[in-house]
Amino acid sequence: MSTNPYVGQKASFRKTITDADILLFSAVSGDLNPIHIDDVFSITTKFRRRIVHGMLTASLLSAVMGTKLPGPGAIYLSQTLKFLKPVYVNDTISAEVEIIEITEKPSRIRLITRCINQDNECVLEGEALVMP
Amino acid sequence: MSTNPYVGQKASFRKTITDADILLFSAVSGDLNPIHIDDVFSITTKFRRRIVHGMLTASLLSAVMGTKLPGPGAIYLSQTLKFLKPVYVNDTISAEVEIIEITEKPSRIRLITRCINQDNECVLEGEALVMP
Amino acid sequence: MSTNPYVGQKASFRKTITDADILLFSAVSGDLNPIHIDDVFSITTKFRRRIVHGMLTASLLSAVMGTKLPGPGAIYLSQTLKFLKPVYVNDTISAEVEIIEITEKPSRIRLITRCINQDNECVLEGEALVMP
Amino acid sequence: MSTNPYVGQKASFRKTITDADILLFSAVSGDLNPIHIDDVFSITTKFRRRIVHGMLTASLLSAVMGTKLPGPGAIYLSQTLKFLKPVYVNDTISAEVEIIEITEKPSRIRLITRCINQDNECVLEGEALVMP
Repeated sequence: MSTNPYVGQKASFRKTITDADILLFSAVSGDLNPIHIDDVFSITTKFRRRIVHGMLTASLLSAVMGTKLPGPGAIYLSQTLKFLKPVYVNDTISAEVEIIEITEKPSRIRLITRCINQDNECVLEGEALVMP
Repeated sequence: MSTNPYVGQKASFRKTITDADILLFSAVSGDLNPIHIDDVFSITTKFRRRIVHGMLTASLLSAVMGTKLPGPGAIYLSQTLKFLKPVYVNDTISAEVEIIEITEKPSRIRLITRCINQDNECVLEGEALVMP
Repeated sequence: MSTNPYVGQKASFRKTITDADILLFSAVSGDLNPIHIDDVFSITTKFRRRIVHGMLTASLLSAVMGTKLPGPGAIYLSQTLKFLKPVYVNDTISAEVEIIEITEKPSRIRLITRCINQDNECVLEGEALVMP
Repeated sequence: MSTNPYVGQKASFRKTITDADILLFSAVSGDLNPIHIDDVFSITTKFRRRIVHGMLTASLLSAVMGTKLPGPGAIYLSQTLKFLKPVYVNDTISAEVEIIEITEKPSRIRLITRCINQDNECVLEGEALVMP
């Protein structure tokens, strides 16, 4: 953890989401919604192809907070999520967090959380509260 | 999907979360927080052992909504999450949702969402908005 | 295992390395270097795209020795690895070993180890010492 | 990457290696040596139980170098590995690296690499050369 986290401090984590991610996330979550795993179904939807699980995209936020800011040992207390745009297979998503409030007793950090795709579109936004 | 979803309708999905789930979720999310993957670190925390990623637990909610209620084709619009208690390796978690509001134009379903462990403790609660 | 391994004896194991291999190897190793998992980063490098983890390629050598030559029960004592060329997603890699020395007391087998891609380029070379 | 890496600089990465790691590493590597996946075979060996793939343990070194020192974008040029002691399922392994030489033209970093178990025993040692 950053020894002195401050309001305005930012961190991010970026990865390309492939079919392997979708398969493993389906396995872990149990979410076999055809919109994620069935091409024949998905072509009939308004998206015209399979989309990535929203909670998979959201899980990248957990990586930023658990490994970078506030970092190792951080515990999630709450998270809000608004899914703004679809994420497609092979999109590259950057999960970005920024501290907006720090309290001491109890020790809490509030962060704005966003996921941005390779076209610089915000696909997910929300707010998190973590215990460092 | 239930052809006529109604307020008060419920559905659930339950699974046991093993070390394999934690490893795969770490891979997908990129969250290598030692509280999830390092016994030596985790024994020094107040939990005394590794805990499950909060967003992994939350992902079971996605399974209920994407496969049962409202069911296949459902798209996540928003989700709030309050993490109330830790989830440990080999806990069995039941993700439960209940419709609290249905609107037509646009077509939206609002649900209460909870995750309950094998000791009947609520470990996670929140609210979801989905497009059926 | 060959009942009488001899100097000059060879074996190989070949597989295509997909995005799924990269994701699973990232999970097991904890290696989230963006050169392996981030298209946006990788395009800025001299490779112009994501490359396979070097140690993933090297792990195929373990397969040859642990299942073919010397075979089941073989224990690794040492390995040297020189990474000569990048391996890209969907490359097909042949891991090849050849016995160059056999000693009896203690019982040891020394092998030359190489990984060759589908264009017959040597991407990795080294030497292994195993206990059969 | 540390903007100014220096001789003597250290970094580490630690994780508990579970059966899930062994399974996924077997899948990626193709190494189905029964010493890793067969209890009935393994009890007849001098180890009396299944052991972790040596190259799986070695792969943690890749994580330290690819994410911490020298860090993101680092490319492996060579690695030597001496396997000193067996690693068992559920051992917690710390992969540790220390810079011992830095050259400029070409830009190379040489590191001592070690893996240490939860009983502070060195199970693996070697040397790496990377391009930052």
